[in-house]
Amino acid sequence: MSPLLSLPFMENDRQRVEKALVASVTTNDAYMTEIASHLISAGGKRLRPIFAIAGSQVGNDLVATDEAIAGGVSCELVHLGSLYHDDVMDESDMRRGVETVNAKWGNLQAILAGDLLLAKASEIAASLGTEVAALLARTIGHLCEGQIEELRHTYNVERTVDSYLDSIDGKTAALYSTAARIGGLVAGHDRAVVDALTAYGTAYGMVFQIVDDVLDLTATDEELGKPAGNDMKEGVYTLPVLHTLAKGGKDADTLKSILGKPLTVEERDTVLKIVRTNGGVDVAIEKARAYVADAERACDALPTGITSDAMRAATAALLATPHLFWNCKTPLLHLA
Amino acid sequence: MSPLLSLPFMENDRQRVEKALVASVTTNDAYMTEIASHLISAGGKRLRPIFAIAGSQVGNDLVATDEAIAGGVSCELVHLGSLYHDDVMDESDMRRGVETVNAKWGNLQAILAGDLLLAKASEIAASLGTEVAALLARTIGHLCEGQIEELRHTYNVERTVDSYLDSIDGKTAALYSTAARIGGLVAGHDRAVVDALTAYGTAYGMVFQIVDDVLDLTATDEELGKPAGNDMKEGVYTLPVLHTLAKGGKDADTLKSILGKPLTVEERDTVLKIVRTNGGVDVAIEKARAYVADAERACDALPTGITSDAMRAATAALLATPHLFWNCKTPLLHLA
Repeated sequence: MSPLLSLPFMENDRQRVEKALVASVTTNDAYMTEIASHLISAGGKRLRPIFAIAGSQVGNDLVATDEAIAGGVSCELVHLGSLYHDDVMDESDMRRGVETVNAKWGNLQAILAGDLLLAKASEIAASLGTEVAALLARTIGHLCEGQIEELRHTYNVERTVDSYLDSIDGKTAALYSTAARIGGLVAGHDRAVVDALTAYGTAYGMVFQIVDDVLDLTATDEELGKPAGNDMKEGVYTLPVLHTLAKGGKDADTLKSILGKPLTVEERDTVLKIVRTNGGVDVAIEKARAYVADAERACDALPTGITSDAMRAATAALLATPHLFWNCKTPLLHLA
Repeated sequence: MSPLLSLPFMENDRQRVEKALVASVTTNDAYMTEIASHLISAGGKRLRPIFAIAGSQVGNDLVATDEAIAGGVSCELVHLGSLYHDDVMDESDMRRGVETVNAKWGNLQAILAGDLLLAKASEIAASLGTEVAALLARTIGHLCEGQIEELRHTYNVERTVDSYLDSIDGKTAALYSTAARIGGLVAGHDRAVVDALTAYGTAYGMVFQIVDDVLDLTATDEELGKPAGNDMKEGVYTLPVLHTLAKGGKDADTLKSILGKPLTVEERDTVLKIVRTNGGVDVAIEKARAYVADAERACDALPTGITSDAMRAATAALLATPHLFWNCKTPLLHLA
């Protein structure tokens, strides 16, 4: 379990988050409520609310204020709204063990209900002041830009590492960063602390996404509980793949000749083997370690206490014990 | 031309709206800017910005402030973002004489770019204060709820008039209402004026949508420049249809036996004929006239001047000269 999830006050705060999440999408209209709360009911780690709570509690380690809970809920609603849209875009049938909204009610309802969740998030953010409202709006924009950047370069074997980093900064890191920042803002922390929380959230998100992308290439189908190499199959070329392509030589040529289009299972196995044996994973892990170091530097600027200790440990744990975070059937030891 | 569009200061203000709209989606990234500005370049009447400007100018009839322009732009971005999503949902290829975003870049980019426009709208709203930010967020939610309500009852011959009115209040009237209200808020008008502007915008939107729906049933294919009866064909049963169904009797039975599923061209012609001859159009026009009266009452509560005169005339004109508003090839005289 993440060090953040195991903080003593966290369990009670998590229950408050669940209640506030459900309340945020509950109306008199049972049909509307059912669609809007569908994915909330399916559960989740609620990492973004936890970041908001941690951001507010750092230095005092007390029970979260209602504002911190509300800030976390607004970020979680953004995450959930984007999942509604992701599932339409990926034509997914299942998420978190339940039918997706698009599978159950259709793409049209899923697009609209996703928009509705984003709107609810903005409404809550507005209740926390113009700075939070503007920050959340910019973050939603950043999230979209990160996803648009990724889409733009699907099946592009010339994709640059900068494009990859820009994309994951937007699609993943921005919302962690904003969650932690909102926590700091609503708690009235000094600007230096608020900025350190922001930097921490970004660094955490970058590590999270890089490890997620590495696992897709290094874990087996059995370990992941889903087919490995899925990103590559769908034309999303992540750090280890980009490194192997940029390295040049025979293996890069083979990769280039196979990639650039959807893959058969045999082609996937061939490219997985090439990527795994060309040092790209080490390069990616090294990059992730640099972000862990960023997170540690950010934590150095935070008031000391159990919350900042847990935050420090949380980022390192993504690399040290990834199987505790990802829905893997066995520990992914070959990453350590 | 709408009385509002022909106000002396309006032309200059409209140019400022166009510039501000383009600026709102322009970034260093040419690709992102192109997708986000695609539908802006295609033009439009910019009725929502005009409502925001009118709302701010009522009683003083002066050049709009930057805040009024920004408020109008935020509402127009919401409208544009929802059109991006509408075109994905309707699988449309063309809008305003240009390829749709989904046709040009694909559904995935269109969903994300629509989200991006909604986020930009929220960001601008946040710059106008928490009240405007919360109002715009609620309005986006209301817009989604109106569309979800419509979808929920597609092909439902038991749909109620209340469901229809709730749906058009959300999908159409809410954003006109909010545009006018934001104009009043940023101008610092008295609450009574702000509330009258809000009521005016709602009434205008209700008239607009009812007339739009009536035209779909009463105009010929040639007049509309697109096939008539399209709503009914797609299972969206509007006021005249609901009236005919509720009336009972032989015609209602025939309607019920044909509706409830997609229609052939012959079936469309049969149901159009039934709806046109059963008084449903008159009932709808009567309902629209009641909203025109609401708009007039709201205008009574506004400070006098050329702006409020133009607003008063604008709502009445929707009924009196609909061919000036809708993209019709000939005047739709049989409505008058």
